[in-house]
Amino acid sequence: MDTRPIGVFDSGLGGLTAVKELQRLLPGEDIVYFGDTGRVPYGTRNRETIEKFAMQDIRFLQTFDVKAIIIACGTVSSVAFNKVAATLTIPIIGVVEPAAGAAVNATENGFIGVLGTSAAIGSGAYEKVIHSISPKARIKSRACPLFVPLVENGYFLRGNKIAELAAHEYLDEFKGCGVDTLILGCTHYPLLRGVIEDILPTVNIIDAGSETAKAAVPILEQNGLLSDCGGNTRFFVSDCTDDFERLAGIFLEHPVMGHVEKVEIEKY
Amino acid sequence: MDTRPIGVFDSGLGGLTAVKELQRLLPGEDIVYFGDTGRVPYGTRNRETIEKFAMQDIRFLQTFDVKAIIIACGTVSSVAFNKVAATLTIPIIGVVEPAAGAAVNATENGFIGVLGTSAAIGSGAYEKVIHSISPKARIKSRACPLFVPLVENGYFLRGNKIAELAAHEYLDEFKGCGVDTLILGCTHYPLLRGVIEDILPTVNIIDAGSETAKAAVPILEQNGLLSDCGGNTRFFVSDCTDDFERLAGIFLEHPVMGHVEKVEIEKY
Repeated sequence: MDTRPIGVFDSGLGGLTAVKELQRLLPGEDIVYFGDTGRVPYGTRNRETIEKFAMQDIRFLQTFDVKAIIIACGTVSSVAFNKVAATLTIPIIGVVEPAAGAAVNATENGFIGVLGTSAAIGSGAYEKVIHSISPKARIKSRACPLFVPLVENGYFLRGNKIAELAAHEYLDEFKGCGVDTLILGCTHYPLLRGVIEDILPTVNIIDAGSETAKAAVPILEQNGLLSDCGGNTRFFVSDCTDDFERLAGIFLEHPVMGHVEKVEIEKY
Repeated sequence: MDTRPIGVFDSGLGGLTAVKELQRLLPGEDIVYFGDTGRVPYGTRNRETIEKFAMQDIRFLQTFDVKAIIIACGTVSSVAFNKVAATLTIPIIGVVEPAAGAAVNATENGFIGVLGTSAAIGSGAYEKVIHSISPKARIKSRACPLFVPLVENGYFLRGNKIAELAAHEYLDEFKGCGVDTLILGCTHYPLLRGVIEDILPTVNIIDAGSETAKAAVPILEQNGLLSDCGGNTRFFVSDCTDDFERLAGIFLEHPVMGHVEKVEIEKY
């Protein structure tokens, strides 16, 4: 039993799709969430910048004496995982391994699709991990640079013409190509799930944020870190908190309960 | 005669549309350009964050002993102009006044449209300046939050279906409404000019970056700050410089000539 909080961070609010699942699976855990809304998106930036931002995010979470850190960001998990993991002695869980493992389990024909930010796809991280589990897997990857700005600006529901057109731009090449399982490798993308399913109705969709929350449970358990005495989530962002409750509610699919505060993240 | 450089900054590369015009009008001036590519976009962030970023950008430019500063960013010019101007003793020129003045001169029926980022439009800055020049002007404004990510990701040419659909989303309400002059109030938007003109072929388009460069000439002249001994432009960005030359060339409409360097902007 360890009552310290779990730290979760993302470039913005996408990581709340992981928090939602974590709250469901581990209702007794305290969670500290940091969303770098003052510097989102990460996925179009260079490795060096992403590493610097990720290290600041982690140093901020460490001020809460967190017992484990979940990188609920496909870009950081793909580009900077080893760099940041090397600095920590507590468990750190990124989205790539859980999502890759879930995809390998789900695929029947061994042909997996991966969607992610430009930085995540450019890193080849999902391919490496999938091949380390299943060397014969076939993989088709696609960077979807407009998906994060679309989600952030509220263009993600079924029927939104711009979201649908962008999704066709990125996904039409997957139609009939044989991919039977598709990783949404960025924690913003589950909000576009309806639009994606309309284009690729028969594929298994793997939600990286949700899979990561599931993967955290046995890791915490094996390390004797579970708790059932808490249940509070504190939210921190680097831009203003004004619109946070409305936006976060969309990602969490329930009203925001708990403390919301602004952080000067570049000081960490 | 003052051979010190002119400082120009933007959230990203959009401000290069002003640099292009400045190089054309004042070929003997040295220019230092800073593009905050590590933190772009500004236009979806809060006033406090925008002010903080703008002050850092200005403190960086001041390390070059610049003789004047051009805020080639519609968001900063709209949201933080007074705040940053109060800290400076050198001339500072934002895009709002020049663009508003050009629009008032260009309109025949006194009905002006304004396109900008969410922060710029939310500030009401263009309306205030237009009404201070022409109290009877009618104004119709529209935030276009997807235009910056579209431009940054290369979706801006005529024939690009996503750019065209987003432009229709924002501009269809201007068709037949009587607006005869339209301010592109963000320095990224001139790259979408073709797409915009296809939807609104008869309006006068006012390019805020270009108008600002034009407005700088008499201000420099009146302050005895012109020079014809230089002509070099140095470029600084806060993300990696890898892709800078290709992208900057699109905005400048000529190959990048000169020094390109990365800056740790949060240290300023």
